[in-house]
Amino acid sequence: MSEQITSRKNELVRAAAKLAQSAARRRESGLFLAEGARLCADAARSGVAVRELFYTARAAEKYASYLAPVLKAAARSYEIAEPVASLLASTDASQGVFCVCAMRGARVLSELPLAHCLALETLQDPGNLGAVLRTAEALGLGSVLLAGECCDVYAPKVLRASMGAVFRLPVFFSETLPGALCELHGRGFSSCAAVPDSAALPVTRADFSRPCVMAVGNEGNGLSQEAIAACETRVTIPMLGRAESLNAASSAAILMWEMMRGGGARHGG
Amino acid sequence: MSEQITSRKNELVRAAAKLAQSAARRRESGLFLAEGARLCADAARSGVAVRELFYTARAAEKYASYLAPVLKAAARSYEIAEPVASLLASTDASQGVFCVCAMRGARVLSELPLAHCLALETLQDPGNLGAVLRTAEALGLGSVLLAGECCDVYAPKVLRASMGAVFRLPVFFSETLPGALCELHGRGFSSCAAVPDSAALPVTRADFSRPCVMAVGNEGNGLSQEAIAACETRVTIPMLGRAESLNAASSAAILMWEMMRGGGARHGG
Repeated sequence: MSEQITSRKNELVRAAAKLAQSAARRRESGLFLAEGARLCADAARSGVAVRELFYTARAAEKYASYLAPVLKAAARSYEIAEPVASLLASTDASQGVFCVCAMRGARVLSELPLAHCLALETLQDPGNLGAVLRTAEALGLGSVLLAGECCDVYAPKVLRASMGAVFRLPVFFSETLPGALCELHGRGFSSCAAVPDSAALPVTRADFSRPCVMAVGNEGNGLSQEAIAACETRVTIPMLGRAESLNAASSAAILMWEMMRGGGARHGG
Repeated sequence: MSEQITSRKNELVRAAAKLAQSAARRRESGLFLAEGARLCADAARSGVAVRELFYTARAAEKYASYLAPVLKAAARSYEIAEPVASLLASTDASQGVFCVCAMRGARVLSELPLAHCLALETLQDPGNLGAVLRTAEALGLGSVLLAGECCDVYAPKVLRASMGAVFRLPVFFSETLPGALCELHGRGFSSCAAVPDSAALPVTRADFSRPCVMAVGNEGNGLSQEAIAACETRVTIPMLGRAESLNAASSAAILMWEMMRGGGARHGG
């Protein structure tokens, strides 16, 4: 039987709400808030440490099968009143299921699996980052590397758009992309910089027989000059229509697809 | 010299604001509101009929080069005060440039160019629809066909995410996908239904030597059974990772890429 929370002033609830709102709070605490029956179940099933589960009576009825693994995994569970749930909700149509979870410990680059990797430099849009993580997992990439000031993978919108991929896909972080590439080249990775330049090598002719780091830049400005210079090859998506007009998530989807299309299976995670 | 509007109660402004908010109003009037310096310039350069241009003094200074073609194309232009601009803005960081434009007349299916076509059935998310239109244009597809209850291509978020592709790419509409397919088969199109089924033909082995209609379903439910049955071939994106986990825009990007990757150039618009 879960404890009940009916007060919107409850401290646990206020702390949980703060995690959804503030990237700084997430960083300091090493915790994040997952929202949604399926996302919380994904977290529990993926071995993410669930500190607290909050759910409404309505959710307990409607999402019983999703809640079961979360109730089992959660250190503490609370049934919350609807007005309390609305404090935690990031979406208009909230399902009334929320988990406070612990982030995984930061992985060091030497643990990055020897398999195709997508590297994102200063990606800013949470919807794009979530979609890219989801595609990377679906296509079977080994890992994703976030370099520079990317948006927070634990932001509510990224978690939601990733459909829980962030719980399952190895995600690595690096202050700068050139630094990470230097280390990964040393481990035998090849590397490609994706550029909107019709003079670059068409990605259809790139060699993906070795594990490769595919570097993709941010929405407005693309990759930094330093990152392009640090990559072995400059590749491009040949466009028959209007050039320079793919969004970051769509171009990343096509680039990852090309990496995995041929021999990717040999390297997939 | 443009007329000035300083009152938030101005009828032209109120009518324009309504166009951004209401799909029903857009349908009734055949008009839509475009927001943003670049998007308005794209509309003007693409031959879209611009009824009214609204811009702030700040925008006239900052976006002079974008405004020039719009001032030339617009039937009437108005300089608006900042508080008036905020009535028209759909984004937090509005640039203060807005156009009331006329939709193109509905195209009949017999005018659909004999080139690869992406067909979307009941696509609901404006961000996804915008991204798909943008990718279709960039990769050089001949057209996009919207079937069933898709979200409105003239919604502010779709226009923005499409980066103006909706002004340049031929977009067609059909009440049902099977009906449209019947007509297009008669004109010599082949057709594929994209399904998340590993037993379907891998899209890498599909034959795109003839102009093809690639049918993609909506975010939650995929294609209707009727649409799948109406297509000649069922194709799938082979996934090495977790199946059934690409978002609609990412899977459409990969499918369009595969259509255009080989001989697509022969059919591109």
